[in-house]
Amino acid sequence: MTKEELYGLKALSIDMDIKEAAKNYWDGISKPIDGLGDFEDILVKIFACLRDMDIKEFKKAIVIMCADNGIVKEGVSQCDQINTYLVAKLLGKGRSSASKMAQYTKAQCIPVDIGINCQDEIEGVRNCKISKGTRSFVEDKAMTEEQALEAIGVGIQMVMELKKKGYHLIATGEMGIGNTTTATALLCALTNMEVEAVTGRGAGLSDEGLRRKKEVISRGLSVHNLYAGNNDKEHALNALVCVGGLDIAAMVGIFIGGAVYGVPIIIDGLISSVAALVAKRIMGDCVNYMIPSHAGRERGTQIVLNELGLDALINGNMALGEGTGALLLFPLIDMVLDFYNNATTFMEGNIDQYSRELS
Amino acid sequence: MTKEELYGLKALSIDMDIKEAAKNYWDGISKPIDGLGDFEDILVKIFACLRDMDIKEFKKAIVIMCADNGIVKEGVSQCDQINTYLVAKLLGKGRSSASKMAQYTKAQCIPVDIGINCQDEIEGVRNCKISKGTRSFVEDKAMTEEQALEAIGVGIQMVMELKKKGYHLIATGEMGIGNTTTATALLCALTNMEVEAVTGRGAGLSDEGLRRKKEVISRGLSVHNLYAGNNDKEHALNALVCVGGLDIAAMVGIFIGGAVYGVPIIIDGLISSVAALVAKRIMGDCVNYMIPSHAGRERGTQIVLNELGLDALINGNMALGEGTGALLLFPLIDMVLDFYNNATTFMEGNIDQYSRELS
Repeated sequence: MTKEELYGLKALSIDMDIKEAAKNYWDGISKPIDGLGDFEDILVKIFACLRDMDIKEFKKAIVIMCADNGIVKEGVSQCDQINTYLVAKLLGKGRSSASKMAQYTKAQCIPVDIGINCQDEIEGVRNCKISKGTRSFVEDKAMTEEQALEAIGVGIQMVMELKKKGYHLIATGEMGIGNTTTATALLCALTNMEVEAVTGRGAGLSDEGLRRKKEVISRGLSVHNLYAGNNDKEHALNALVCVGGLDIAAMVGIFIGGAVYGVPIIIDGLISSVAALVAKRIMGDCVNYMIPSHAGRERGTQIVLNELGLDALINGNMALGEGTGALLLFPLIDMVLDFYNNATTFMEGNIDQYSRELS
Repeated sequence: MTKEELYGLKALSIDMDIKEAAKNYWDGISKPIDGLGDFEDILVKIFACLRDMDIKEFKKAIVIMCADNGIVKEGVSQCDQINTYLVAKLLGKGRSSASKMAQYTKAQCIPVDIGINCQDEIEGVRNCKISKGTRSFVEDKAMTEEQALEAIGVGIQMVMELKKKGYHLIATGEMGIGNTTTATALLCALTNMEVEAVTGRGAGLSDEGLRRKKEVISRGLSVHNLYAGNNDKEHALNALVCVGGLDIAAMVGIFIGGAVYGVPIIIDGLISSVAALVAKRIMGDCVNYMIPSHAGRERGTQIVLNELGLDALINGNMALGEGTGALLLFPLIDMVLDFYNNATTFMEGNIDQYSRELS
């Protein structure tokens, strides 16, 4: 897609009547008002996004964007790049962590090769490869603008396809050695946070590795002059091109696609939340379609969620990737939906004053 | 039971070999080390408590202690006392909030009348009534020491019974109008926190009601001279007798019973966590058997969890009661158990370096 096409996209408005009706329904259930707190609000938000409050069971999917990052040659990860390919192969066979957790929650798991550094097509992984990984962002822009736009387009198309198939919820996941580095660089470029304050250990970096990672991120921001950031869409897209990754770009597309096609998108951890922030900068209203899940162990995640105005529902210091934190939200949402559909109302329960404000 | 019998009880030691073996098994799963963070630790803790790491599915129960509190006549709740009885009736019929959520998670739901202010036996609710509610703690001690010990004994017996039936996890719940007042008074007595800082709105108190609630709690602490608290068991038991409730006392018994019989007990919100703190003061080691669930909307909950050295896994600003926050943890733990049992190991996945520290 072209930049003009991207900027021309509009978010669907959420359904305020459904929102009010669903909230009223919650208030009629025999329990203290707002008793389930944020879980009530999340369900109301999902209904308002879907423009439907009569859903018996959520049809769920997780899309896992897999890509390699040229920056790994600077020694920012303790893992070899080959692991992106190896884990993607496991995902293709339904045997990686997210596959197993998706199976448990009855979510369709869709791994996508958006830029893995490999020759072959991976069985069970959708081939949308844009390039065999990005360039090292301390040497050059990580990708061209065309590549970024193409990856965003893949994400948007994916949502369109899943919407047509009747999916209600899409979780975002990723796999790509080095992508806490790209995500952290983007986070700094978009928020002017200090590299020192937000850089974490990823999948388990040593002290020396962490020092190197911080240095590389700082160098990247400096090379591309990304500190002079502001909040406009041009800056966000440019930062994505300069220091981002193809996985992140494709996830940006998923968040934008959620707003365009009216599907709530579940944010996972750092990488996913940074993609959500880029999407918000490009299309402000798409935050209406974002559902937070967990806070994660990476320091940056909470900062991005604050920036998005969203609160994590799950703690747990997770740092697994593949969208596994987002998947953990599914059984909670399913349980809350079941409760919403089957709970006893005040009227049925013959209780008319429990938790009602008297004064 | 007598006080000497209570003080003579010993916590089972948790199985350190199982703990180490389960942690090692986690580390062999194809994912970053500690990828699932606190959820890995929680499962390891459960296995160590149960002295068993070969569990395919958790057999789960929730025990809901229902009792009335004399303090409600001071106007500390916006609900009439009759609602304890009405909700207990719904629980007995399997139709209240916790009943529905327990059904969804396949947990056995056991409501207990430990002190409801009613004449009749409630169908479907186990009758362990000790008195028809407590006395107002600004006028007298809420209960006698004998009553408190009897209620604690009921909780301990309940765990013994469930352990015999093969239950792996017991969630704690309560129903009792006025019990955020008793719990907050106890919290202040046990931690020397300021009433002003920790008193919340319970199920939805007005500003005027909140002011009255704070005044009543302060008066209760003063009448019984509970500010001069220390950390010993005599002080904890005395505070429970003076300003606690029969629901809280019975939950203290559940936490102690968990340690005595080797069953992990899931903490719910404020009232449950305060009961856990009383239990810890009586038997320090029983914290090894406590599993935190959510943080809750009541300000005190987080303070008590800190005091227990535990971190909530779920946020969400819930304030429903009945143990519903603890029930929300069940689908998460079930999912993590399924993952533990079915995940691909590094060896099976033919990956030997993903997430391994190289330096």
